Amino acid sequence: MKVKSLEDVLPENYAEGVQKRQLIHKKDGAENFYMRLFVVDQRAPFPPPHSHPWEHEIYVLEGQGIVVGDDGEKPFKSGDVIFIPPNERHQLMQQGTLRFI
Amino acid sequence: MKVKSLEDVLPENYAEGVQKRQLIHKKDGAENFYMRLFVVDQRAPFPPPHSHPWEHEIYVLEGQGIVVGDDGEKPFKSGDVIFIPPNERHQLMQQGTLRFI
Repeated sequence: MKVKSLEDVLPENYAEGVQKRQLIHKKDGAENFYMRLFVVDQRAPFPPPHSHPWEHEIYVLEGQGIVVGDDGEKPFKSGDVIFIPPNERHQLMQQGTLRFI
Repeated sequence: MKVKSLEDVLPENYAEGVQKRQLIHKKDGAENFYMRLFVVDQRAPFPPPHSHPWEHEIYVLEGQGIVVGDDGEKPFKSGDVIFIPPNERHQLMQQGTLRFI
């Protein structure tokens, strides 16, 4: 069993204006799911649409934006969850600073 | 792709003083990880120590408490993450109202 505080986990530069913290990782013994915390600056360039074989299960801690998937655009806000199935092409666009896991 | 707001997901009574919301579930197409939101009342009885074949990857949204695992007791607070490996006996004890996913 592990307990980690955010201040124990150093942020890494993930992309321009985007920081990532690896909260719970394979090296913690988590074989099944990888929990990360992203902080996206309001001025960060939007990522290009992309897809990958793993799913996203996102909880929005702070901020709001638009997520684009196969079925169009959907708005999201703090407290919402976003599920993106494996291999679905997606794009997350922040409106202001965004924090999510 | 799905976006859900908390107000779209009805809380269920999970145990005395404990409400659960099924945020992202197998029926959403999430085969790999089950995201739930628990709200534990400060007066809720502590759950008995227990174990199961699935792991826990917890993000603490609000509150604090003590988690007991194979290697003893560890305190946790809002913003912390808790990883409990599969089959490890564990017990989560809130100190005040607790919200976590």
